Amino acid sequence: MKLYEQFSTEIKDSIEHGYYQPGQKLPSMRDMSAIRGVSISTVQEAYRLLEDTGIVMSKPKSGYYVQQIQNINLLPDISRPEQQPVEVVYWDEVLKLTTTDNTSNFIALGSGAPNTSFKTLKSFHRIYADIARNQPQRVYENSKGKGLKQLREQIVRLMQTSGCYSHPDDIVITSGCQEALSLSLKAVTKPGDIVAIDSPSFYGSMQAIQSNNLKVIEIPTHPETGISLSALEMALDQWPIKAIQLVPNANNPLGYLMPEDKKKKLLEMASRYNFVVIEDDIWADLAFQKPRPSTIKSFDTEGRVLMCSSFSKTVAPGLRVGWVAAGGYVKLLTHLKFITTLGSATLPQMAIAEFLEQGLYEKHTRHAKQHYQRGRDIMINWVHRYFPEGTKISYPQGGLCLWVEMPEAIDSFELNKNLQAYKIGIAPGALFSANGKYKNCLRLNYSDVPNEKIEAAVKIVGDQAKKLLKII
Amino acid sequence: MKLYEQFSTEIKDSIEHGYYQPGQKLPSMRDMSAIRGVSISTVQEAYRLLEDTGIVMSKPKSGYYVQQIQNINLLPDISRPEQQPVEVVYWDEVLKLTTTDNTSNFIALGSGAPNTSFKTLKSFHRIYADIARNQPQRVYENSKGKGLKQLREQIVRLMQTSGCYSHPDDIVITSGCQEALSLSLKAVTKPGDIVAIDSPSFYGSMQAIQSNNLKVIEIPTHPETGISLSALEMALDQWPIKAIQLVPNANNPLGYLMPEDKKKKLLEMASRYNFVVIEDDIWADLAFQKPRPSTIKSFDTEGRVLMCSSFSKTVAPGLRVGWVAAGGYVKLLTHLKFITTLGSATLPQMAIAEFLEQGLYEKHTRHAKQHYQRGRDIMINWVHRYFPEGTKISYPQGGLCLWVEMPEAIDSFELNKNLQAYKIGIAPGALFSANGKYKNCLRLNYSDVPNEKIEAAVKIVGDQAKKLLKII
Repeated sequence: MKLYEQFSTEIKDSIEHGYYQPGQKLPSMRDMSAIRGVSISTVQEAYRLLEDTGIVMSKPKSGYYVQQIQNINLLPDISRPEQQPVEVVYWDEVLKLTTTDNTSNFIALGSGAPNTSFKTLKSFHRIYADIARNQPQRVYENSKGKGLKQLREQIVRLMQTSGCYSHPDDIVITSGCQEALSLSLKAVTKPGDIVAIDSPSFYGSMQAIQSNNLKVIEIPTHPETGISLSALEMALDQWPIKAIQLVPNANNPLGYLMPEDKKKKLLEMASRYNFVVIEDDIWADLAFQKPRPSTIKSFDTEGRVLMCSSFSKTVAPGLRVGWVAAGGYVKLLTHLKFITTLGSATLPQMAIAEFLEQGLYEKHTRHAKQHYQRGRDIMINWVHRYFPEGTKISYPQGGLCLWVEMPEAIDSFELNKNLQAYKIGIAPGALFSANGKYKNCLRLNYSDVPNEKIEAAVKIVGDQAKKLLKII
Repeated sequence: MKLYEQFSTEIKDSIEHGYYQPGQKLPSMRDMSAIRGVSISTVQEAYRLLEDTGIVMSKPKSGYYVQQIQNINLLPDISRPEQQPVEVVYWDEVLKLTTTDNTSNFIALGSGAPNTSFKTLKSFHRIYADIARNQPQRVYENSKGKGLKQLREQIVRLMQTSGCYSHPDDIVITSGCQEALSLSLKAVTKPGDIVAIDSPSFYGSMQAIQSNNLKVIEIPTHPETGISLSALEMALDQWPIKAIQLVPNANNPLGYLMPEDKKKKLLEMASRYNFVVIEDDIWADLAFQKPRPSTIKSFDTEGRVLMCSSFSKTVAPGLRVGWVAAGGYVKLLTHLKFITTLGSATLPQMAIAEFLEQGLYEKHTRHAKQHYQRGRDIMINWVHRYFPEGTKISYPQGGLCLWVEMPEAIDSFELNKNLQAYKIGIAPGALFSANGKYKNCLRLNYSDVPNEKIEAAVKIVGDQAKKLLKII
């Protein structure tokens, strides 16, 4: 991180801790330079960055003033999905989103992919190429059974950072988190069963639910604390729910962290109502808080939680390396993994194990999180600036996606269609519902280093949204 | 191939074409050297190799004599599985077989893995390492939808060598053939359906059948021509069979090639009885004949065949790259692939595409086949020599495994258990049946370059088998 970036973070911290109050004028550049012992140009760049991220505003010939802090009223409302089991639709739209060719000048604002051009990924790249060059025979061999042992050992160590103590034999390596979720669902349900999910929810796991001939009940979800436990309890009283599948940490698409006491309460309910928790932890190592948030799994004493994750968001999606910490279902998971894909590619497993073992993974995710946090602030500011009045925005505590709720009259499928001409894509909100809620919502990716081209794209999205409202 | 190996192949061809008759004495080394214009030492080494492979025998102070040709009576009998739908068992034993640690001096005669130490694989290794080093950004990206386009194009070209004309959009890349088979089964069946299979049959696809809650009916199979069509027809008249899953080319475990007219007849029956054919073609590029055998798919005009394959036997299993040529089911397969694993690892796909594009794949498989054919002959000879009297042996037309039928009193599970002390493993025959046939059979791998250590291991297997018969 450059000096001015670091300095702007310090000022931001001061604002958040109340040292500078909303509406208050910041010290002049000259004064600030003297107070903090940095050059005037550093202060100038830091102030400009704070302005870009909407934290301060400049008044011409007066100076920089602290903005009102991100207001709770700007957050999306708590979701109110239909409280009965439904079937999942929208496969064609999911396919379109995930197969968009973003190579040729296309700006894929709807993508869920991480930034893979950070300098801290160079060490991974070196390891990857070195193993490919030096260990062909190991690379050619299948990684057997539960997957590469060296990697399972490193994953166990990594999971300890969320207070979760597992054994390498409880881990099954999968081809990404998608296989982890898909096998977990298969392990704990039979066709026709009902599964509860957070709502909005990740479209990939909903498609897996649909393909396993399951029904889903979408649980109302608060944009800051996650699913409503009272709504879940009402659903449990009414329906024979087999499992709940959710993303409690740095949620996709809302970005919240489910509070720890809520995690514990959910687990108590799981025990009382005898259902299984499928916990998607894929984003949690990109949560901005330190230390990273705990998992539901870390409170699990009954082997009732299947925790799914992968390195697709933290390292790179093209590696297809994920895992399940399978609790009481590990034997069944091992069988299902064998049947489904036999094993995952060996080289990516070896490379990630080495990346973890050398401590380079932590270094990389630390760096990525700093960028994403800044990207979030700037993207929020752009959406504020360019989207129609009345637009509400999530305030992600991690990850790399923003959830945007536009005025109800806007259909984001139509918006996305109109954006094709501009070579811009968004993720329409309805994909995050089993059957058609959130049509006025969309998900935006802020993983790219912010630049003018992206700002221009966000402005076009906003303009096109206004056009649909017929206000421009 | 060395000169003496090439020369021994020529002599073998002469024998097979009747130029030298069984029982006939071969020309003396000196005469042969003069006739064919090679050195005496080359003749000597070639004769010794022919002796090792059981094609000729030496009589002291007389010379080398042509052995009786491999006799049909030595082949295993046509299989007679129970003619009713059953459930698949034996998962624990399959797991044991496939997770055996064969790193530490263990001789894994039961393995289905290819030889990955051939010199012709060095070019693949170079490509693999080069791409890893030079194209990190592409490698980090997910290969979307149906998989890497460049690879799908090369696969279409490869499939033309079996007379099969497909379009890249009909191909879905999978994580090995196991995923191809598993998704295909899922695409065409519902829980409770009945699937017909060849018998003995590959344990991996049987486990997939079991896990999809399907029942199987095992069709009697001739060791030289594959499934009995009349038995299949009787089964079709009696049961509502949804699909047949079989390995018609270089069959695992029997090694036969299903004749072309039988392939066509099977397809006619599929049309008449309206069932789907899941064709496992994974071994066919290792069929010893030139050109390689046709696929059932190549005669398919109704989109009724889902052809599954992978590069796990021809290049390396640890890459986990396979595919389905999905016929009329391509949309459904694309969906199932997304749900199950989202995509396969990108680097292995890129490397195999390049390996194919440069024409290096054909060069490599040609080389591998020569070795395997020789390995087969030598392994057959060893089994003849060391196994109990009455043992029958398949005569594989491709691939790298032998099927051995021992006297009925021998239980190959017990045999395998007794072999643990010697650090030798076999694949027990019962794994190749849904529910317990072939207990006196086993599968042996001949992919390693034959050496004294392997011969000693085969002798131990034979001795232990005899011990179970209480004849030593």
